[in-house]
Amino acid sequence: MHQTEQRINPLTTIMNPQSVVVAGASNSIVKMGAIQALSLLNSGFAGPVYLLHPTEKQVLGRPTYPSPEALPEAPEVALLVTPSRITLPLLDALGERGVRYAVIVTAGFAEVGADGEALQKELLEITRRHGIRFVGPNCIGILNTHAKMNMTVAPYLDQPGHLGLISQSGTYVAQTMAYLRERGIRYSQAISVGNSLDIDVVDGLDHLGADPHTKAIALYLEGINRGREFVETARRVAREKPIVALYAGGSEAGRRSVRSHTASLGGPDALFDGIFAQAGVLRARSVQEMFDWGHALANMPPPRGRRMAILTHSGGPAASMADACDKAGLTVTEFSAELQEKLRPHVVATASVKNPVDLTFIIESESFVKHLPEILFGAEEIDGILVHGMMDTGFAKMIIDNMGSLAGGAPPEFLKMLEFDLDRLLVLPAQTGKPLVASTFLRVDHAAETFREHGVPLFSSPERAVAAMAALADSAQIRARRRADRAATETPAVTERASVAPRNEYEAKRLLAEYGVPLPREELAAEVADAVRIADRLGYPVAVKGLPPGVAHKTEAGLVWLDLRSAAEVQNAAEKIREQFPAAPLLVSEMLCGGRELVVGLTRFPGFGPCVMLGAGGIFTEAIRDVTFRVAPFDRAEAVAMLDDLKLRHVYGALRGRPAVDREILADILLGVGRLALEHPEIAEIDINPLIVVDGRPIAVDALIVAG
Amino acid sequence: MHQTEQRINPLTTIMNPQSVVVAGASNSIVKMGAIQALSLLNSGFAGPVYLLHPTEKQVLGRPTYPSPEALPEAPEVALLVTPSRITLPLLDALGERGVRYAVIVTAGFAEVGADGEALQKELLEITRRHGIRFVGPNCIGILNTHAKMNMTVAPYLDQPGHLGLISQSGTYVAQTMAYLRERGIRYSQAISVGNSLDIDVVDGLDHLGADPHTKAIALYLEGINRGREFVETARRVAREKPIVALYAGGSEAGRRSVRSHTASLGGPDALFDGIFAQAGVLRARSVQEMFDWGHALANMPPPRGRRMAILTHSGGPAASMADACDKAGLTVTEFSAELQEKLRPHVVATASVKNPVDLTFIIESESFVKHLPEILFGAEEIDGILVHGMMDTGFAKMIIDNMGSLAGGAPPEFLKMLEFDLDRLLVLPAQTGKPLVASTFLRVDHAAETFREHGVPLFSSPERAVAAMAALADSAQIRARRRADRAATETPAVTERASVAPRNEYEAKRLLAEYGVPLPREELAAEVADAVRIADRLGYPVAVKGLPPGVAHKTEAGLVWLDLRSAAEVQNAAEKIREQFPAAPLLVSEMLCGGRELVVGLTRFPGFGPCVMLGAGGIFTEAIRDVTFRVAPFDRAEAVAMLDDLKLRHVYGALRGRPAVDREILADILLGVGRLALEHPEIAEIDINPLIVVDGRPIAVDALIVAG
Repeated sequence: MHQTEQRINPLTTIMNPQSVVVAGASNSIVKMGAIQALSLLNSGFAGPVYLLHPTEKQVLGRPTYPSPEALPEAPEVALLVTPSRITLPLLDALGERGVRYAVIVTAGFAEVGADGEALQKELLEITRRHGIRFVGPNCIGILNTHAKMNMTVAPYLDQPGHLGLISQSGTYVAQTMAYLRERGIRYSQAISVGNSLDIDVVDGLDHLGADPHTKAIALYLEGINRGREFVETARRVAREKPIVALYAGGSEAGRRSVRSHTASLGGPDALFDGIFAQAGVLRARSVQEMFDWGHALANMPPPRGRRMAILTHSGGPAASMADACDKAGLTVTEFSAELQEKLRPHVVATASVKNPVDLTFIIESESFVKHLPEILFGAEEIDGILVHGMMDTGFAKMIIDNMGSLAGGAPPEFLKMLEFDLDRLLVLPAQTGKPLVASTFLRVDHAAETFREHGVPLFSSPERAVAAMAALADSAQIRARRRADRAATETPAVTERASVAPRNEYEAKRLLAEYGVPLPREELAAEVADAVRIADRLGYPVAVKGLPPGVAHKTEAGLVWLDLRSAAEVQNAAEKIREQFPAAPLLVSEMLCGGRELVVGLTRFPGFGPCVMLGAGGIFTEAIRDVTFRVAPFDRAEAVAMLDDLKLRHVYGALRGRPAVDREILADILLGVGRLALEHPEIAEIDINPLIVVDGRPIAVDALIVAG
Repeated sequence: MHQTEQRINPLTTIMNPQSVVVAGASNSIVKMGAIQALSLLNSGFAGPVYLLHPTEKQVLGRPTYPSPEALPEAPEVALLVTPSRITLPLLDALGERGVRYAVIVTAGFAEVGADGEALQKELLEITRRHGIRFVGPNCIGILNTHAKMNMTVAPYLDQPGHLGLISQSGTYVAQTMAYLRERGIRYSQAISVGNSLDIDVVDGLDHLGADPHTKAIALYLEGINRGREFVETARRVAREKPIVALYAGGSEAGRRSVRSHTASLGGPDALFDGIFAQAGVLRARSVQEMFDWGHALANMPPPRGRRMAILTHSGGPAASMADACDKAGLTVTEFSAELQEKLRPHVVATASVKNPVDLTFIIESESFVKHLPEILFGAEEIDGILVHGMMDTGFAKMIIDNMGSLAGGAPPEFLKMLEFDLDRLLVLPAQTGKPLVASTFLRVDHAAETFREHGVPLFSSPERAVAAMAALADSAQIRARRRADRAATETPAVTERASVAPRNEYEAKRLLAEYGVPLPREELAAEVADAVRIADRLGYPVAVKGLPPGVAHKTEAGLVWLDLRSAAEVQNAAEKIREQFPAAPLLVSEMLCGGRELVVGLTRFPGFGPCVMLGAGGIFTEAIRDVTFRVAPFDRAEAVAMLDDLKLRHVYGALRGRPAVDREILADILLGVGRLALEHPEIAEIDINPLIVVDGRPIAVDALIVAG
């Protein structure tokens, strides 16, 4: 379906076309075709734009061409906003004319059901025949602000920016234009991938990863059809550029909404937590976070550490910022005596210079916007600067307006507050390589506008500023780790092996053992007497299980006898099992008790292939679903890190005199299960539960392998 | 310090004064005194405002009075924005003149350290002498929009509203005025309590609880000095009115910031989780949430249940809303066939009516703003309606502006989009008693303005709308439960008992047993031989512990011997203990194993008195701090509910064939520990760890009581 091997990304041309032909624009300008053509014509695009129309001679005041054959050249990219029934023959004709790239806005394909799916298949055949690479169908168009090329329904009225967006919903490309402009958030490029029939989010990531104007990438996802490639590409791009993703589709209602929207494949929420961790992608939990964080990531340098300075003249927001930092793992420690001494001359006596620096309610702003920031940005002990409310000229304005009732109006010393100079402050991030993130409760404000103009992130509440700063710090750590990992990355060679079909726990475990999964000492007994002999040899206590074919829930069937402390108890257990299942093989194992348990599993999610799961075991498995996933194959560093994803990770550290879980052995198990799944595509599911931790060593006490 | 017994809340007068005298306003109008006087003079306040000034004859264009004695009457309330050194004699003179209420903005008291604390003590003496009740010092003033009375630094320019605010930071009263106005969030009253030397957040809660214009209450807290009274008052008020609180001060940096700000007493974050749960207060995690939720709670009816309908024409936001609902415990189930049938005629063929209702990109808006909402609000299967983006006239406007480049400009059918009629939709919440919460990415938008005018909550991202709806649903459930509890509320009589000082685990446990805490079968042995006899009587296995005085960590000292399976093992253990501690009493207990453990504790937090703690036990105690608190005394319903606060609550439910923890027994323990603490103020701390769950019954296996 997708041509991943292709070296040249089709988006290189589509996002930077020399010439464009538009089909679907008419003089009925309430239709999307006309609106999108208008966006393109008004966007300042330098190349020729050809309008196709079968009957009207002029559209939007420009001459038209009646058909692709009539065009004076083969335009590089076609924008189609035509009804679905004429889109197919039109593409055929455009292909004949030599068009090789298209943006297909037209809806009515897979997202509307079976009829649409048939149409979509046909669309693919036609484009394949002509070698046409395309975005869509069912998208809202594309935008490249640096090329002044806008094929969406909404005008882009801001300067070009550094945030690249790939979205499975057109809304976040077009309907958010005003939202972004008001907040100073600027796109480099934005791509609405629609149904992703040809070009998809993976191609988009690859493309924006290489785009020099794009400093950070935001993704809106409702599902991923090429999971493996997504992880590989995101992982590669995330080494150099921050990626933030919002995934909506984890809930049943979300999926219902998604199916009727872009026909993507959703998956459980925890799967996406796992693959984002694996790929080095920050996960946003809301549209607001996606844009907030994307904005900060696209415009601020990465902090070298997590030590924050807070500067404000409002005690409440200072406390909120400090508290939010604490929760986000950013530290706001008391400044050194040396630093406090440097700050002190620039504040009033009642102000605090400990961190947060709280100047209290003052009118004088010079120290606030110049001297103090210079000292803080220059301090070795600080990695990032958070500011709240320092530039509230809007607040002064409100008060000044209120003074209109007086004979003399507002006095000049007050009016000065409206125009203090922020230039010194706003260049400090670039000069010092330290990020600045700010918040204010005022939007209509000269200083706030200055922040936006300079691309310095300014949010409407202190906690949002802190969350964006935390995203900067997290992202910096991800990149540092990824770069360190690069050398160590293993790409294991995978050779498919002969099919296997383990018939019971014993056979499942032997297969797992071949892939490095540690097992308890255990042997299979054909007869009751053998079981007793084996138990004697293993030493008591032991466990005895009956393994008749086709019984999935052994415990419920009375097939599991634990903690047997003598030959007599073993004999009794084996006999009880044989009474019910006369031919059942008997598995006699050493009895393991560790207090701590894990589970490891394998699931094949559509679009992702084999995904290895690690979860908290024992009573947790049912009580709280604490699991994480990785798409196989993954390297050892990734396997070692998986445990850190669990909420209960500390349960598996050194605890109460018990050693920490041996992460190397655990990594062997996780890598082994992944390799097993890759070499045996006939295996649908693996469930190792429990993996009991004995003196830190995880051992597979029970296992199930399900053939697909 | 606080006069809780007083029947009439002083805020009744302070927030609705007949007349006001202002001290501190001068013709230097860049000073806060002038700014605040100006706010009051411009706010439309009906009563007389007297300005005091020792030398200037006119201030702000009005005649002044040189001293309190010169005033023509005793004004009801004094507003003081004077330097701290003259505030004290001035208050004395105002008291002499008969003033009984004050708002003291003046800073420089306890928040600045020892000197300020001395001054604050003096302030209290003077006001006590004259019976003056006051807000502050170190506050930013007060606001009553319905009385047109504004004593803050910022003008209030909106209509009167229904959200009451009590804030320990002046910022959220004054600096947020523009923020709130842009969002249609309107105060009924706002009170900046500052250092809360006399009137505090508890008085504020009591006052706003009784105010008919206030439909919901928001609290910004940095600490609580009267914890017990806070819980009682909030609990009473929360039966009738939603309360949402933001607490900043849980982190070390937060507390550092708070100390230099309002000198409040902070406390650990988990304590506030507990008291908010106990009080029925929703906890916001950011300034944005506090205002978002407060806005929705003040203006929308409570939903009868958690079944949501989502209406939109954007697939992405629909998926985000559905996903966010799922995470917030709101259900977005597929509509019944009957309901889908009713909706179908009003949408285009490609639209989905399953829920979310996604109309896709359309221009026609009648069905969107009228027919569909009427059907949804009328449906029995729906408790609340979430809408995204339906009223994007701003979007149309943007496109229309883009059409300015055309000869004819935008066509009339498009212009119609700018003015569709929302009146039908916006009255539906009041008519049907079902809440409507909306989101849009457009702020400059005729329809968005109409929403704000009608007080219908409209947020700038879909997840914020869902969070506000969840707050409505949570709040409705809190009130329903609180009303049901009212009859059952016990107020246990507390009589202080003779002091006790348990010297060791055995004595601590006996004392706990008197308060209903179940213990294992155990006896104290004076000699080794006794220990063996007791063990024989109890039956094996047993535990033996040595209890020498003054040893806190018994395990580390080799004093704890577990799982002893014979007389010989007991003898050996007892002898080993006696070798090290020859006189140590020996405690012989039945050996209990349950797999699940809890911890119960008692701490006295400054301002709160005794707080009972319940936490997940065993390996969790160290691995994740999963605890909750209640301020004692609390009733049985509250004690029974405590387990639900734990993240790991499901671990204590029926699990893997084991019964759920017996909540009645657990409630006995929690109530008993609370009563013990109330009756024995000499006890500083109690630690029952572990409380082992045996067949569902929690039993105190170890306990420590620390005298204060």
